[in-house]
Amino acid sequence: MFAKEIYIQRRAALRKSIGSGVLFFMGNDDMGLNYEDNAFRYRQDSTFLYYFGISAPGLAAVIDLDEGKEIIFGDELTIDSIIWMGTLPTLKERAGLAGITEILPYAEVSGYLRRAAAGGRMIHYLPPYRPEHKLKLMEWLGIVPARQEASVPFLRAIIAQRNHKAPEEIAEIERACDITADMHIRAMEVIRPGMYEYEVVAEMNYIAEKNNCQLSFPTIATINGQTLHNHVHGNLIKPGDLFLIDAGVETEAGYAGDMSSTVSADKRFTPRQRAIVEVQNAMHFESVKALRPDIPYMEVYDRSARVMVEGLKALGLMKGNADDAVREGAHALFYPHGLGHMMGLDVHDMENFGEVWVGYNGQPKSTQFGRKSQRLAIPLEPGFVFTVEPGVYFIPDLIDLWRSQKKFADFINYDKVEEYRHFGGVRNEEDYLITADGARRLGKKKPITPDEVEAIR
Amino acid sequence: MFAKEIYIQRRAALRKSIGSGVLFFMGNDDMGLNYEDNAFRYRQDSTFLYYFGISAPGLAAVIDLDEGKEIIFGDELTIDSIIWMGTLPTLKERAGLAGITEILPYAEVSGYLRRAAAGGRMIHYLPPYRPEHKLKLMEWLGIVPARQEASVPFLRAIIAQRNHKAPEEIAEIERACDITADMHIRAMEVIRPGMYEYEVVAEMNYIAEKNNCQLSFPTIATINGQTLHNHVHGNLIKPGDLFLIDAGVETEAGYAGDMSSTVSADKRFTPRQRAIVEVQNAMHFESVKALRPDIPYMEVYDRSARVMVEGLKALGLMKGNADDAVREGAHALFYPHGLGHMMGLDVHDMENFGEVWVGYNGQPKSTQFGRKSQRLAIPLEPGFVFTVEPGVYFIPDLIDLWRSQKKFADFINYDKVEEYRHFGGVRNEEDYLITADGARRLGKKKPITPDEVEAIR
Repeated sequence: MFAKEIYIQRRAALRKSIGSGVLFFMGNDDMGLNYEDNAFRYRQDSTFLYYFGISAPGLAAVIDLDEGKEIIFGDELTIDSIIWMGTLPTLKERAGLAGITEILPYAEVSGYLRRAAAGGRMIHYLPPYRPEHKLKLMEWLGIVPARQEASVPFLRAIIAQRNHKAPEEIAEIERACDITADMHIRAMEVIRPGMYEYEVVAEMNYIAEKNNCQLSFPTIATINGQTLHNHVHGNLIKPGDLFLIDAGVETEAGYAGDMSSTVSADKRFTPRQRAIVEVQNAMHFESVKALRPDIPYMEVYDRSARVMVEGLKALGLMKGNADDAVREGAHALFYPHGLGHMMGLDVHDMENFGEVWVGYNGQPKSTQFGRKSQRLAIPLEPGFVFTVEPGVYFIPDLIDLWRSQKKFADFINYDKVEEYRHFGGVRNEEDYLITADGARRLGKKKPITPDEVEAIR
Repeated sequence: MFAKEIYIQRRAALRKSIGSGVLFFMGNDDMGLNYEDNAFRYRQDSTFLYYFGISAPGLAAVIDLDEGKEIIFGDELTIDSIIWMGTLPTLKERAGLAGITEILPYAEVSGYLRRAAAGGRMIHYLPPYRPEHKLKLMEWLGIVPARQEASVPFLRAIIAQRNHKAPEEIAEIERACDITADMHIRAMEVIRPGMYEYEVVAEMNYIAEKNNCQLSFPTIATINGQTLHNHVHGNLIKPGDLFLIDAGVETEAGYAGDMSSTVSADKRFTPRQRAIVEVQNAMHFESVKALRPDIPYMEVYDRSARVMVEGLKALGLMKGNADDAVREGAHALFYPHGLGHMMGLDVHDMENFGEVWVGYNGQPKSTQFGRKSQRLAIPLEPGFVFTVEPGVYFIPDLIDLWRSQKKFADFINYDKVEEYRHFGGVRNEEDYLITADGARRLGKKKPITPDEVEAIR
């Protein structure tokens, strides 16, 4: 936890931005894998962590704007739970560390909310992203899942705060990024043909766990880098393969790091691998160069896409005018995802509130394939922390589909693309903070260029 | 997955044991940590795995006893999911590997069940142990959580099958036990004063992950072994500490291992540590010696408790008649948990069905402190796989409570106990299979006695 004053100030700022009603926060509970008591690792709700700091199941909280109260609902430990779970600081003590002095039994959540609602007051709640949240809203407020509507003013006020990272948050994120970089460097050192993907994962997790960190998201570590969210680690690494890693840790306080790397299974990239990695690098460096306050991140995305088109034209894979290709969406055959996303207490920060609110300020998103996957479009502001992660992929099923539809035949040389059918995918990713006059990479530098990668192989 | 015939036979045996109605199986879905798409590692429901073998979200199944049908409900991949998740065998292909030929869209689950129910047929379903199950039963069957009542004939029929492990299951469990033993041996090799608990965990997880295994339950690795389910790993290991480990893996097919070890932070146990470890060892070996078909496991528990009382009497910690002490429950100050539990596709096998059905055959459990935590009481039968894990603990809060109540003062020398206040706890645990005429330890032997442990330090 941070200093008490930080939580007090965060709540005070939130109170100011919403006029009246009851702000209701649901903590997360333990969740059973295959029976109730065999739980996944515990993860508190990020918004609860942000305003109340306590990482433990069985909690809820309200900020009652009308009555000027801040209350945590939860129960103290019984002797039975002490035997099984050990002696812990009391809830009263832990709440005190966040500046909360009023504790009520967990069983009183429903009564409190229903009395407020009966008094005609608005209960603001956030989107339920776990089944448990839907059951609780039903139990506590009597609202069935189909009619559970989150409070947009509430989530927008939170986004306005959480989007701007304070120094103590940046320090946490930077620590996560340092350890994340070490995981990638370790993987780059050990990958060899003849290993299984999961052996690389074991090496990376070892670095995370030696630093008392959990993963911030499920690791991608695969010879099938063209599959964007591939969490299978059962493949044997063969000579000539490209290996794509996307992995990161979160600190004990919950702040995330998120990086990607691409490395050849062999000690050296082939000339063809090197050429595509260099296209990705050009996209990456063009994006980083553009980072500064006020530039819309969608504009940075466009730049990265145009640089890719130019690079692929030089290799004979694309043709025509790069601006037109990107505007019409032809680049997305090779670059079907976005350039990056907000990062903080969640690796996709506040994705539970909806991308349209976090990355688009409520404006509609594009429906164009590729561009619709851009998670962050708004002008960058000092304090924003986000990823830069352009990529170049050859996805056989997508190539076949587009070719059969003769899609963007003016921009894509399908015969040439066919030669790269089994190439795989390339992505590198770093994390950046917008400063008063530019941007700063967070955490330790890890290899990105072919020369840098080969130097540690 | 096992051979197709195994799933066909398992379902045929189940069909025979229940007369009529629709047997309904809910697969597990992905579950988000902090937003919906940032999922915990995926874990299929164990009963779904047992009868249908497919480990993937978004599935349900029925065995329709009246119409003689076996159906899996689920959807084939779209091009979007292929881009993000890769090319996978089709659902039709995967279902075929379990001998299922009828696939219906997931959206048809509710219609199928409601038509059957409207026709007056019984829908048998299992206890909902995840919030998602409760929401699904509500959506699909229109039953609110408070009125969701699992089918006892259905779960008893499953228990009767799953309690008896077949050779292919025993081979899987034995593989899990081998890797589990390697995790413990690795920990025993590395533990030193000056390490943090999480560094030991990192070493153990590395062994699990190098073998492409997930943990079967959250690891206990602690200097506070007196806390029975302690999942905090932040403490520094000091000279003189005892270190207790309870950890295991599950194989890709889902079968678990579960072992415990106790080791001194220093290379040698102190004489006092050695004396308590020897009491635990005596309980352990007495229990193992007793294992054979037809002996009630509650009787083995009683034997282990009496051996502990005799051992603690020799050390001056207890007094009086051992039979009386155990009958009245005085031993539970030092041994507040049970001797073991069924193990299989769940580390506490089928705990989601309720211990009373799995370990007590529907008979009521004792309410006596300590004895009430015995998860398995019934006579052992060939094919049963379960743990043997007696322990001896000094739990300061419990000692203070009982002493203040003068509880069992005829059996407990509280002044002597006070000298052990900060001793910690000792547990060793192995996994056994009941054979036709005795029992067999599953998996590689790991050190248990003080001499064995010290030999690898």
